[in-house]
Amino acid sequence: MPLLQACGRVAAETVKASLDVPPFHRSTVDGFAMKAKDTFNAEEDKPTTLKVVGQAQAGQLPTAKVTQGTAVEIATGAPLPEGADAVVMFEDTTRKNNTLDVYKVVAKDENVMKAGSDLRRGDVLLQNGQTITSRRIGVLAASGLTKVTVFKRPKVAIISTGGEVVEPGKPLPPGRIYDINAYTLNAAVSECGCEPLYLGIIPDNFEDLKKTLRKALANADVVVTSGGVSVGPKDLTPKILNELGKPGVIVCGIAVKPGKPTTIAIIDGKPVFALPGHPTSALLIFHILARPVLLAMAGRTKEPEQTTVQAVAGERMFSAKGRRTFVTVNLVRDDSGKLRVFPVATGQSGAITTLTKADGFIEIDERTQFVDVGEKVTVYLF
Amino acid sequence: MPLLQACGRVAAETVKASLDVPPFHRSTVDGFAMKAKDTFNAEEDKPTTLKVVGQAQAGQLPTAKVTQGTAVEIATGAPLPEGADAVVMFEDTTRKNNTLDVYKVVAKDENVMKAGSDLRRGDVLLQNGQTITSRRIGVLAASGLTKVTVFKRPKVAIISTGGEVVEPGKPLPPGRIYDINAYTLNAAVSECGCEPLYLGIIPDNFEDLKKTLRKALANADVVVTSGGVSVGPKDLTPKILNELGKPGVIVCGIAVKPGKPTTIAIIDGKPVFALPGHPTSALLIFHILARPVLLAMAGRTKEPEQTTVQAVAGERMFSAKGRRTFVTVNLVRDDSGKLRVFPVATGQSGAITTLTKADGFIEIDERTQFVDVGEKVTVYLF
Repeated sequence: MPLLQACGRVAAETVKASLDVPPFHRSTVDGFAMKAKDTFNAEEDKPTTLKVVGQAQAGQLPTAKVTQGTAVEIATGAPLPEGADAVVMFEDTTRKNNTLDVYKVVAKDENVMKAGSDLRRGDVLLQNGQTITSRRIGVLAASGLTKVTVFKRPKVAIISTGGEVVEPGKPLPPGRIYDINAYTLNAAVSECGCEPLYLGIIPDNFEDLKKTLRKALANADVVVTSGGVSVGPKDLTPKILNELGKPGVIVCGIAVKPGKPTTIAIIDGKPVFALPGHPTSALLIFHILARPVLLAMAGRTKEPEQTTVQAVAGERMFSAKGRRTFVTVNLVRDDSGKLRVFPVATGQSGAITTLTKADGFIEIDERTQFVDVGEKVTVYLF
Repeated sequence: MPLLQACGRVAAETVKASLDVPPFHRSTVDGFAMKAKDTFNAEEDKPTTLKVVGQAQAGQLPTAKVTQGTAVEIATGAPLPEGADAVVMFEDTTRKNNTLDVYKVVAKDENVMKAGSDLRRGDVLLQNGQTITSRRIGVLAASGLTKVTVFKRPKVAIISTGGEVVEPGKPLPPGRIYDINAYTLNAAVSECGCEPLYLGIIPDNFEDLKKTLRKALANADVVVTSGGVSVGPKDLTPKILNELGKPGVIVCGIAVKPGKPTTIAIIDGKPVFALPGHPTSALLIFHILARPVLLAMAGRTKEPEQTTVQAVAGERMFSAKGRRTFVTVNLVRDDSGKLRVFPVATGQSGAITTLTKADGFIEIDERTQFVDVGEKVTVYLF
């Protein structure tokens, strides 16, 4: 990937510096290069006098050399001439023809950036799995690189199922609702650094759904469906998945709330996440189960998987009997500065706005009946 | 912008819901719709008996109606039939032909998601200036939208100047160094939600630089240059800017460290930021002065401009006399849990790696001589 387009991608190689930066001792000011010890007796009213023997310009190797009692005029960024070990700034000198008066003691290495002081050949510039940021791009450019090996963005096919959902933009017949999941999952897939491939809404019909799932597996690295995995007679997804390849369905229902009917399959090495149809359940389970897989496939192994904050429960929150329970919550800072956590008002997992109102979610263990007011909780931020 | 591609863009309109979501009362379970008060005498060993008069399927308006003593079989997501005000779950009933025994008292609205309970027509779904996230896309889709008006990404031309810098990828002649600024600024511009336009390295030559700046102003909304603004005779950028349009240079040198030679011009309404050549200075000043302008032009008015944390100084840090000083720092959490701030080791503003090692920077006011150990400081995070 060309370096200029690599911002935000994930490194698939560890890169080391192939040269010292800067490659030579370099002046950091406009002034005169000389030997520091020649100025050791200089005073503001009793200058040391040196002879100017040449000029060093930025971008060119200087031909003039410095010996005891001589100086070379030097520009910011120019290589230090042979023999010089310091630079005195213009404003600390006066010059008449080739006679230079220096009014200040200059220390060795003063106003000099030493070769290799920024980067040493062999320094690690970028680690496999790190996200490439503007600052890391600068370091790679400094060592002369123009390309970097990055992880491919995994392709993720997205399918909505169900007879009652209608694609946004189309007229809404009575009794039906607009599909939400394809849109939220599409965006959530992008946020994981993957490339979404939207395959539309497929009616609950064995042949259509099978055809679309086959197409999805042929064109994508991962498949995410929503709907069609409850207990009703129309829930065809698990049956079809078992017909499409081996090993087929490996998880069929999980002891969590919401998201119980979640189904996971592996078809010839490709993961398929069949999420529930309820928008909040679908996105929450995507977040908990699919996202870590997508991040790993996208190479984001050096990234924090999930941002969390510590807080205390602002009210009692119950778990569903025998199921690990995820409660979408809001964070409120109370007068004493403590972060308190409250469940988001609606208990309806069909409600999409729950998600936009929530700051994150907490997890209640399946062996815990409830979290009481004042108990410490970890909030996973959206 | 199609909604599916709008993730990460900035809304240029405020969007309100054009319909109630859901648009009808909806069952949240598979079961039977009926009148709640018909079940008020039901007990586990003394069921209430109702007559099943029809079926309600998801995606269709039910034709059957519920009257006292009757029930309609209903699927998850199906509209509630006329006359019904609650749904009893399958598992709380037994059915024989059209006779239904209900073993449980059902409350009014139980297992029903009411029309408009998720979104009400007129609710604000998205505000002008908000970034469009996966969760906000879900809400827009739920109300049937497929497009959203977003801010154009401002185009930002990037030019490096100076005879000593070489484009990465090319051979490095003696005495020269690779250009870093074009790469870091390119990426930093992308991180502001703008589109970078890289115009290359231009030698310190009046005609070439003028031609390139003219091209930049013709093709971009903002121009960012680096190098060519110190006090030397080769620093042509300010002179050229004044010839290119009105009002020309409006800021020529600022009382900060690093970044003193920074020059800002407005040419026929387009801002030009002429940053110093030193990589750390260039990126720091970009961050402080150019970034807020780019964020505003990109419409990101609802975003936090800069993430900060509070910490205490871990050592004494001095300001430059009479200049506001920015010190790049690292954050370290000490044993007591306090965040302490230390300056990043090198004082060389030419060092690019300073930036990759730093967590952020602190600002020392021009009237303050130093920040002492233990003093509270605000750290602006990179």
